[in-house]
Amino acid sequence: MDGNEHERKRVLVTGADGLIGRLVMEALDDEYELIGLARNLSGYATVIADISDLAALLPVMEGVDAVVHLAATSAVESPWARVLPDNLIGTYNVFEAARRAGVERVIFASSNHAIGTYETENAPALYELGDGRAWDHHADIRPDSLYGVSKVFGEALGRFYADHHGLRVFCLRIGGVRDPEDPSHPNQLWADMGDTSPETVAKRKRMRAVWLSERDCVQLITRCLESDERWALVYGISDNPRQFWDLGHARGILEYAPRDGAPEAVE
Amino acid sequence: MDGNEHERKRVLVTGADGLIGRLVMEALDDEYELIGLARNLSGYATVIADISDLAALLPVMEGVDAVVHLAATSAVESPWARVLPDNLIGTYNVFEAARRAGVERVIFASSNHAIGTYETENAPALYELGDGRAWDHHADIRPDSLYGVSKVFGEALGRFYADHHGLRVFCLRIGGVRDPEDPSHPNQLWADMGDTSPETVAKRKRMRAVWLSERDCVQLITRCLESDERWALVYGISDNPRQFWDLGHARGILEYAPRDGAPEAVE
Repeated sequence: MDGNEHERKRVLVTGADGLIGRLVMEALDDEYELIGLARNLSGYATVIADISDLAALLPVMEGVDAVVHLAATSAVESPWARVLPDNLIGTYNVFEAARRAGVERVIFASSNHAIGTYETENAPALYELGDGRAWDHHADIRPDSLYGVSKVFGEALGRFYADHHGLRVFCLRIGGVRDPEDPSHPNQLWADMGDTSPETVAKRKRMRAVWLSERDCVQLITRCLESDERWALVYGISDNPRQFWDLGHARGILEYAPRDGAPEAVE
Repeated sequence: MDGNEHERKRVLVTGADGLIGRLVMEALDDEYELIGLARNLSGYATVIADISDLAALLPVMEGVDAVVHLAATSAVESPWARVLPDNLIGTYNVFEAARRAGVERVIFASSNHAIGTYETENAPALYELGDGRAWDHHADIRPDSLYGVSKVFGEALGRFYADHHGLRVFCLRIGGVRDPEDPSHPNQLWADMGDTSPETVAKRKRMRAVWLSERDCVQLITRCLESDERWALVYGISDNPRQFWDLGHARGILEYAPRDGAPEAVE
């Protein structure tokens, strides 16, 4: 600990043992004083707590400047029995505990699945280069799953806490973050080019459209940690040629400047 | 029971003992075969069940054609401890039980509080005659309360069940329905004209802006019961001179034709 330790913002990261959580814990460790929260012991968790337990969250929030709320059941097909405690009750507890502790800002990992039906209705044509369609943050909500409904709930809750309790709230409709070793990572897609079934080809194209690179993800979260805005709802993807969610608002309100874009090749 | 009994739609009304529930149970009894559901025994309840109990709801849905889902904690300032079971879990249970039983349609009593912050930010100027501002169903969600957040959740859930499970879903952002004997009923407002405090005057003006008359409420619900649309999200108010929510979509998609408007007088 050096003399500037007290000047670094203290940031609580929920879901610190998840894919994005691990990324944040590694990349932001120098700039911020990070507290990693997870349900189970892991290399990145410094606090063990279940976000569905408000009483357990309250002491963790003391002295925290910002929360990066990533903890959730993240599978699109998650059943109600998981969505209810992990995403609905858990997200309420995070916002409410933050409010009670006087935390200034919450960054909420929402999801494109809050409006996923625009995609399910228009795929796979939507994935084509030059399709040109893009939905922005004013699109009517159209969740494609209970998981998506839970993200709409979290966004609505965030807007309420921003408007009526003075928190700064940033909701990121994240596309797809992948481990570099994951076969579905855009840089890995060429490995299985032998499989040209329509379904696999569509999946590859989709991943190129919705990809959020590791460093763009870190940049976007950092922008939220430093922003003077009270509220923002933006899409979290890299500057992908096949993108069908609008990045204009993220560029404008958060000065997000993605450095990556999913690689392209002729199929 | 006459020979046409089997041709009448069977309609389950949740919250049958509430203000709107009683109204519906009285007004639609001839046209529909009504089943009134309430948590406690009352004159209008024919089935006693708590909507936070999915298992209790399932048998009630058998053979039902439509659900008018009114049961909820309805106070704007309701705490999380009531919003969670009554509005979040309860509304999920109603949609899910309807889906499992093959119910064709659900009419969901949403609320203007799903976007109530537009009002809190602009009141009381917004209540003035000729102010002219009006928000439509595409307005970004801005709940003014946990209650409002729960209504956003119900709308998102409804959209999901309409888009992905084939239900017909109608969400009504209801303004204010009042018992004719209630002192805050627009027809009663003249009784307390002696009180001219700014707060009371603003309350009276607000009620004139957001009022939904008993017969307009019944008409709107009937339009939803008979509509061929798959999905609609509309505001539920009478044709009030001070209205600040747009009725165009309700008129267009549901052929809603309000017969009332809050009475005006010089204050």
